[in-house]
Amino acid sequence: MDNRAPAEVGCRLSEVDTPALLLDLSAFERNLRRMAEHLRGTGIQLRPHAKTHKSARIAALQVENGAIGVSCQKVSEAECMVRGGIRDILITNQIVGARKLSRLCALALQARIAVCVDDAHNVRDLGLAAAACGATLGVLVEIDVGANRCGVPPDAAALDLARTVAATAGLRFEGLQAYHGPAQHTREYCARKAQIEAVVSRVRQVRDLIQDSGMACPVISGGGTGAFALEAASGVYTELQAGSYIFMDADYARNELPAPEQRLEFEHSLFVRTTIMSRPAVGRAVVDAGLKAIGVDAGMPVVHQVPGAHYIRASDEHGVLRLDEAAQSLRLGECLQLVPGNCDPTVNLHDWYVAFRDQRVDALWPVDARGPGC
Amino acid sequence: MDNRAPAEVGCRLSEVDTPALLLDLSAFERNLRRMAEHLRGTGIQLRPHAKTHKSARIAALQVENGAIGVSCQKVSEAECMVRGGIRDILITNQIVGARKLSRLCALALQARIAVCVDDAHNVRDLGLAAAACGATLGVLVEIDVGANRCGVPPDAAALDLARTVAATAGLRFEGLQAYHGPAQHTREYCARKAQIEAVVSRVRQVRDLIQDSGMACPVISGGGTGAFALEAASGVYTELQAGSYIFMDADYARNELPAPEQRLEFEHSLFVRTTIMSRPAVGRAVVDAGLKAIGVDAGMPVVHQVPGAHYIRASDEHGVLRLDEAAQSLRLGECLQLVPGNCDPTVNLHDWYVAFRDQRVDALWPVDARGPGC
Repeated sequence: MDNRAPAEVGCRLSEVDTPALLLDLSAFERNLRRMAEHLRGTGIQLRPHAKTHKSARIAALQVENGAIGVSCQKVSEAECMVRGGIRDILITNQIVGARKLSRLCALALQARIAVCVDDAHNVRDLGLAAAACGATLGVLVEIDVGANRCGVPPDAAALDLARTVAATAGLRFEGLQAYHGPAQHTREYCARKAQIEAVVSRVRQVRDLIQDSGMACPVISGGGTGAFALEAASGVYTELQAGSYIFMDADYARNELPAPEQRLEFEHSLFVRTTIMSRPAVGRAVVDAGLKAIGVDAGMPVVHQVPGAHYIRASDEHGVLRLDEAAQSLRLGECLQLVPGNCDPTVNLHDWYVAFRDQRVDALWPVDARGPGC
Repeated sequence: MDNRAPAEVGCRLSEVDTPALLLDLSAFERNLRRMAEHLRGTGIQLRPHAKTHKSARIAALQVENGAIGVSCQKVSEAECMVRGGIRDILITNQIVGARKLSRLCALALQARIAVCVDDAHNVRDLGLAAAACGATLGVLVEIDVGANRCGVPPDAAALDLARTVAATAGLRFEGLQAYHGPAQHTREYCARKAQIEAVVSRVRQVRDLIQDSGMACPVISGGGTGAFALEAASGVYTELQAGSYIFMDADYARNELPAPEQRLEFEHSLFVRTTIMSRPAVGRAVVDAGLKAIGVDAGMPVVHQVPGAHYIRASDEHGVLRLDEAAQSLRLGECLQLVPGNCDPTVNLHDWYVAFRDQRVDALWPVDARGPGC
């Protein structure tokens, strides 16, 4: 397969071929430091989600900046992170099937691995797989705090499952997984705060239920870039899984901040560079980044710092831009930078980060864990 | 990077790990033959779009079944096809930028290459690049037949550009590109027919204008899986670019057929195999194929042959299914097959086709041209 990078190290940004996934290293490094500063002294650990970047290199930089390890969404991502030297991984998901369980347990011989559960049969299978290879897996019971995805109800069912985990050889009960995805994207600050308060209240009840039964429940894991400050201040969460803060996509940037005068804490550092390949009408341009270069599941990308240029429609290899009067000087062959609506699926389309500094390509980093890997 | 395939040749379908891109070879081969039969004796050539499959292997099978070559959407796809032995390629798109033009012309020394244009400056650049490497490029003038994407207006502007092409050394004017994407997906048959009739009328006018000026205009290229029979019967199109017919996605299957009693001409042959990894509530299951395993730009995938199971929501690595009463026997660990809403972006997420026949894995074909390659 053709995994050629769209640039060479040392070339000017203007020479990078398109479409290309650009990483502004200065903005990215500021984002890394800002999250570390935010959590310093709070006692809250950062376990950033590697599904955002799928890069062992970026994971290592996060650990250098204070993260205790990373979150992953699947075994193949965790394998990539372990190969890259990460030694503490939580898979924030259920792992099902004999093949995957065996690979998961093999990883647990090389690194500290924890996984989420919401089913007693799955707990039994995890225990058998762990015992078979002599590994111990950390386990978080996932509770459904209102997202209606995975997880047991936030009641006695969670305690029952925690007891099952604790009673299973090869498994170590560590605590709770509680993630409310939709709340991360609630635009209005007060509504978002109210949602997270409801989440926290459910988590606290379940934690207390478990602790009152005499079991320890040391880890409460969850949180995302949209509401991490609320989760950090909750007094309940012990670690945060925010991932997108390093790149800051257009969707998260639409979240209202607590005070109108407040500045966005994180900067856009991830862009898709694209070329205008057709300029067929006064109010229209067509660029070479479509569905196969940029995710549109969370809305259309935003054209970075070009007032009046609006990305309105994507097909496989075309993006159609509506140009208001202010943008009508855009010419065929000009390059633009697009801020993805959602970073995670966008990164997953690319094989390389073209990392730049001062308008020069500084490094090419592979998207190591790209793909639908099992 | 980890491009491991989710199965081994010879294993049972039930052993394929998930998520995986499955190709039902029997259905796929019937689709290949049906399109060939449909066009036999009509004088219309088939130039199927390789952006659908991104596989040199599949392109070769299409040529074996009567295609004159393939369509591509970008230079990197065309490079992959030439490496795989395809000798006649139309890039149904504008190619802009010195690097890409030089690669395009290098290809034209190895195969018959044509490209679309909608701008006189681009024509000049193409000519200079072709002359610089001693190649000749075929050129189609793209006209905008109502899709509001690329293309010059379907009037004297097209004749002007055709003359510019004909007057440029290194270029060979071949005819017109006329593709109306939205019409391919118009559900109601009569409305779709009316749209294509309007398209055909515009194309005929431009063709006549060019021919009346004394130039030959031998090629009229366009058409897709949603309306190919109308374009084939138009008396104007000389070649069809339909791509999805080999796989038949859920979106195209929603098109109404000319007569209610008519059977879908093409069968679903492409699926994403997925595992139920959580079964947290009576009416809900969660599968391991989300945004990174299946495209949702043309609607949610359809759960194949499981009445009452509806894929309603995708996140990175989760798909949430609503289960009506008929589907409530689905269990944790069971595997399902999803029919993608849109094949093209789905294939682009995967590295391998797991090609099966009679419930056994028959072959693993790489998605050679996967990625946002320049």
